[in-house]
Amino acid sequence: METMFPVNGVRLGIASAGIKKVGRKDLVIIELAPGTTTAAVFTRNDFCAAPVVLARQHLSQAAPRYLMINTGNANAGTGESGLLAARATVRALAERVGCAEEEVLPFSTGVIGESLPVDKLVAAQALALADLHEDHWQAAAEGIMTTDTRPKVASVRIPFGDHYFSITGITKGAGMIRPNMATMLSFVATDLTIAPALLKVALSRAVEQSYHRITIDGDTSTNDACTLSATGASVLPPISSETDSLYLSFCEALESLLLSLAQAMVRDGEGATKFFEIQVHGGLTGRECLDVAFTIAESPLVKTALFASDPNWGRLLAAIGRAGLVNLAIDQITLTLNDVLIAERGQRAASYTEADGVAAMAPVNIVLQVGLNRGTASTTVYTSDFSYDYVRINAEYRT
Amino acid sequence: METMFPVNGVRLGIASAGIKKVGRKDLVIIELAPGTTTAAVFTRNDFCAAPVVLARQHLSQAAPRYLMINTGNANAGTGESGLLAARATVRALAERVGCAEEEVLPFSTGVIGESLPVDKLVAAQALALADLHEDHWQAAAEGIMTTDTRPKVASVRIPFGDHYFSITGITKGAGMIRPNMATMLSFVATDLTIAPALLKVALSRAVEQSYHRITIDGDTSTNDACTLSATGASVLPPISSETDSLYLSFCEALESLLLSLAQAMVRDGEGATKFFEIQVHGGLTGRECLDVAFTIAESPLVKTALFASDPNWGRLLAAIGRAGLVNLAIDQITLTLNDVLIAERGQRAASYTEADGVAAMAPVNIVLQVGLNRGTASTTVYTSDFSYDYVRINAEYRT
Repeated sequence: METMFPVNGVRLGIASAGIKKVGRKDLVIIELAPGTTTAAVFTRNDFCAAPVVLARQHLSQAAPRYLMINTGNANAGTGESGLLAARATVRALAERVGCAEEEVLPFSTGVIGESLPVDKLVAAQALALADLHEDHWQAAAEGIMTTDTRPKVASVRIPFGDHYFSITGITKGAGMIRPNMATMLSFVATDLTIAPALLKVALSRAVEQSYHRITIDGDTSTNDACTLSATGASVLPPISSETDSLYLSFCEALESLLLSLAQAMVRDGEGATKFFEIQVHGGLTGRECLDVAFTIAESPLVKTALFASDPNWGRLLAAIGRAGLVNLAIDQITLTLNDVLIAERGQRAASYTEADGVAAMAPVNIVLQVGLNRGTASTTVYTSDFSYDYVRINAEYRT
Repeated sequence: METMFPVNGVRLGIASAGIKKVGRKDLVIIELAPGTTTAAVFTRNDFCAAPVVLARQHLSQAAPRYLMINTGNANAGTGESGLLAARATVRALAERVGCAEEEVLPFSTGVIGESLPVDKLVAAQALALADLHEDHWQAAAEGIMTTDTRPKVASVRIPFGDHYFSITGITKGAGMIRPNMATMLSFVATDLTIAPALLKVALSRAVEQSYHRITIDGDTSTNDACTLSATGASVLPPISSETDSLYLSFCEALESLLLSLAQAMVRDGEGATKFFEIQVHGGLTGRECLDVAFTIAESPLVKTALFASDPNWGRLLAAIGRAGLVNLAIDQITLTLNDVLIAERGQRAASYTEADGVAAMAPVNIVLQVGLNRGTASTTVYTSDFSYDYVRINAEYRT
């Protein structure tokens, strides 16, 4: 098990509210010390859930003291009554701990379209509060799981001068693949002192290079959220400038940590048997590299070939050809699979043999390099394959 | 079997060239009488095959007299040598029949990245030419099949004044789903006399409302092509104006014919167990209706729910929410599945019961109506589901 460094100023409590299954840990409360600054990014889906609406609103009004997360029910597609239900659980917690309602952010994940069982949630709040402890990151990672097959955690302790700072985070979900399970939730904290504007910048940049670089099937959840809290408990000096070397060090560590959490979601993707890293280089712009990478990553034909360990370069070229690039010269394209050159100048490489291709596709981890050979931009995207289990899981989910 | 009305001025010949399988009918030659005008639309994929390059070029230089179609080999991803091979087969046919090379359009469908067996194709041309007959549309539809499970044909005879005109067409493929099989080829002819510019307009409009309204998995083939030839053999007067009532009658019949061919491809889609008609209405623009319809149609989560006959309205709303519409009010959305109202104002309809939803999803043919309730634009798109067989067919295709 990975070492989870506690973050001074953060305590986590877990309880069973019995929302969907009796005895299952389905409520997590994260307590943040006074003075903590928090930034967050939320789903880009226009169809966002009641807790997302409320959390966004509260975050704009006050610095959060409590994050309250339930599984088993997404409180999405529930309209005005869903908002009232979310508010009721927030109010109950605020009254119990003696903070303002705006200082509580609610998060929900689970089935869409069913009413949130407010009474059960409120009753379990006392148990979760009694369980608060700075060493409960691992238990909290288990407490926010839905159809995940394993908890996803990451933690680093970085030396800086004579001291250290910590970043610790947990996540749930398997990419943006489960709108019905209202997929991705991620909670990250550090003991540094960081001005709110800089915290927001650090989070946005790191999310762009991690959670926004993965896909399982292109679907975006209604409840996605990622928070980053800075408690200020460290003895290291406050960060108030973008050029502060401590800030740069923090941003680098944060991006690496979020990337490892994002990759853990892909590896735990529904029915996933492969981990596919798509590196696109030689593009005119980063945007066109992303277009190529995501068109490949979301092509069902590429994903089924990946499942079959089939070095099907025709499907790769066809996906690149429909990515919508301006004046794309397909006869400039180079494709490499796990270091085997399979195509160059838009056709099969002279040196390529089917046996080499099959050998290259055999491992679980596959790296595809796409050379566009028309510029200097590059990007990397991560995805998994489409298997029989993907169909089974998503076809049988509600039955 | 459907009645296939011959089109005066068009003869079709079928032969076995033994390209991939000995004895399989894999070469079709369509002969067009002198004076025939032909329009065509080709794949939008930047990675287009050698025959597409050549056919486009020839069409810009002369009115075609011969369409030459082979299956078993797409002649795509074959670079300069692929172009030379396509030219060699065109030249051989032109010499044999005594026409200019530019009067021959080549079409290929099959595996990507393998060399076209020129000698076999050329040898079989004599057999196909000996087989030319105006009643061979059905045989030609079978001759252009690859992994299709059945031939796809459509034919109408429309009264106009004291006479009739005919439109007859064949198609192959199961949507835009098989770049590796270089999917969709369609050949349509009429005996009317139509000016080239008007023929092009009629074809573009009809394709927009038919082939561009279907999707199986969002992949676009490298070899897609659709041709429309007007032989002028009918006694009806030549069409030279867009407001000619005969032209309007022709355009209407053509669109209906292409739509039936396009729908036949969806019904024969790889692993398809359902036929899903997505009607989006109440949009601000046709473009945003299309964005919503295709986002739903290409969502793997929607398609697996469809396979499971699961009235999973959360996945439908989540797909609509990520379609990228400006200022979309999700609480205005209405969803109806086979006349059962399942969601209104962005949440479950008060009258809806799970039993009604399950009953609505049971048939093979499912009609989804999406009400955006913000304008007057509408559109309809057709697709199929994602089944175990879809994964099996595409994972095992080359093995």
